[in-house]
Amino acid sequence: CALPTPWEPLRRVAVTGGTHGNELGGVYLVRHWLQAPGELQRPSFSATPILANPAATAVCRRYVDQDLNRTFTNTFLTSKAAPDDPYEVTRAQELNQQLGPKGSDQAFDFILDLHNTTANMGTSFILEAKISFSMHLCRYLQLQSPELTYSILEYQAPGETNGLPSVAKNGICLEMGPQPQGVLRADIFSRMRALVASTLDFIELFNRGTAFPAFDVEVYRILDSVDFPRTEDGHLAGTVHPQLQDRDFEPLLPGAPIFKLFNGKDVLYDGDSTVYPVFINEAAYYEKSVAFLKSRKLTVSVPALPALTAAPTLAP
Amino acid sequence: CALPTPWEPLRRVAVTGGTHGNELGGVYLVRHWLQAPGELQRPSFSATPILANPAATAVCRRYVDQDLNRTFTNTFLTSKAAPDDPYEVTRAQELNQQLGPKGSDQAFDFILDLHNTTANMGTSFILEAKISFSMHLCRYLQLQSPELTYSILEYQAPGETNGLPSVAKNGICLEMGPQPQGVLRADIFSRMRALVASTLDFIELFNRGTAFPAFDVEVYRILDSVDFPRTEDGHLAGTVHPQLQDRDFEPLLPGAPIFKLFNGKDVLYDGDSTVYPVFINEAAYYEKSVAFLKSRKLTVSVPALPALTAAPTLAP
Repeated sequence: CALPTPWEPLRRVAVTGGTHGNELGGVYLVRHWLQAPGELQRPSFSATPILANPAATAVCRRYVDQDLNRTFTNTFLTSKAAPDDPYEVTRAQELNQQLGPKGSDQAFDFILDLHNTTANMGTSFILEAKISFSMHLCRYLQLQSPELTYSILEYQAPGETNGLPSVAKNGICLEMGPQPQGVLRADIFSRMRALVASTLDFIELFNRGTAFPAFDVEVYRILDSVDFPRTEDGHLAGTVHPQLQDRDFEPLLPGAPIFKLFNGKDVLYDGDSTVYPVFINEAAYYEKSVAFLKSRKLTVSVPALPALTAAPTLAP
Repeated sequence: CALPTPWEPLRRVAVTGGTHGNELGGVYLVRHWLQAPGELQRPSFSATPILANPAATAVCRRYVDQDLNRTFTNTFLTSKAAPDDPYEVTRAQELNQQLGPKGSDQAFDFILDLHNTTANMGTSFILEAKISFSMHLCRYLQLQSPELTYSILEYQAPGETNGLPSVAKNGICLEMGPQPQGVLRADIFSRMRALVASTLDFIELFNRGTAFPAFDVEVYRILDSVDFPRTEDGHLAGTVHPQLQDRDFEPLLPGAPIFKLFNGKDVLYDGDSTVYPVFINEAAYYEKSVAFLKSRKLTVSVPALPALTAAPTLAP
């Protein structure tokens, strides 16, 4: 759990919303900040608010042609522009120009990408495994509001990462739910807003030379996905079992029911070890053949984040 | 509260789902019944399952071109077909051929139209005021499961009625929530299924000559709607206040907060009498400029529904 750790102040920070156009928390926060950007200013930097998918946002859909948050691959980002490109490929290239280029020294230092889910996931942070800077951010946010429950969801991309935050040197997704698509709940909106403010505060502290000690933390590491039971023509043959619905991050034991078929029968979890389901019954995942994701709960040790002034100098 | 009351057995009954293609309770019940119609059979009749908006259902959107459940007006139903007709106008005309024609003797006897809402409305029945037959149905359903809370929502169409049930001689909308668009919850699915079964049981009892006594019942009569606070460009300037969110059918007193603006201020309800908000923060109503509907709570006296054998004979 080590790299990449910034060794310089983070000056170029973006807060992105509307990466999925029907997840209204980020959409309306960004729209607000575009009119009133002062809230994103800190002494050492100003975060840039960006409406990531304006076309999808305008029609209140997740995307227009394809999921933008799966489009930040080198293949899409470096493909030659063509008139019949999917909208999101064009938009990903624009964002890569503005915030990247991905993997380059010119790329933004940090992207905080704002999402909502229909699943009962509370406040979750989604980040790539082994990014200790983002882990320190999560830790900081947890300490700011110890009365709230936060969950850290780690993924290890099997190939290259394809999400919007991957364009920057560091990044994280903030995922809050449950909130229906196309709905803006005031409670989720204000909590998301407060978390963005605390994120910027954390970066400000880091920029000013604050060191953060090592710690151990519980994380959920994504394993794989489970599809709905389906009929021959691809429609659902049942849905998430009432005993699993809304139980994100709770243990699922072998033999426990996971689906209720329309014919009345239960489908049981046939794995041989306990897992922790997340994104249970997320609306956007029906088309991705995902009823929920399985995760493993583990404790990781995060090394200290040294103060900037203590950054190692180059060897002579 | 008198007409229309059927004086003959109800033989032609339809259960419609997917009138809005992203309200998945009705969509999947109808798909199931199309494969297994036995559940809709009763000794005196068989209900016909109908997927009302297959094109919208296929793309999991409320509608393709316009809201089908506002399209059953005489103007749309009798307009001459043209190649550039909105899909839902064509589809409404098809349904009117199959289930109507609206207002004619050949029309179906009863349509039960299945809906879901993102609002916290529990189990609600939506019906036109003064339809005593539907009121008896609601009463019957309430008595079947007295442990559940049902709400009866009455509307008086200012002009002609434009919803799918209006095609039949009698009809009602079953509205269940909260359920996000594009999500199928097992709890809502099974409750909706049980209510459909009880509705068919009620019709069967009526067809067999059962009389139903008079009763008084509490209903919510829809008054008008309240839009979100908006910016000059039409975007939200705030959203439903946390103190109003999820409080459908609860009293809203003059001076109580209804919106939380993004600038932190509250908007208070400036009416001069208590109302009962419904459809609070329904996703589909953002585009209709509706943050919630106001209703008035009142008690109505419903006259007895006489047994069919006691139907008056024509005077000589």
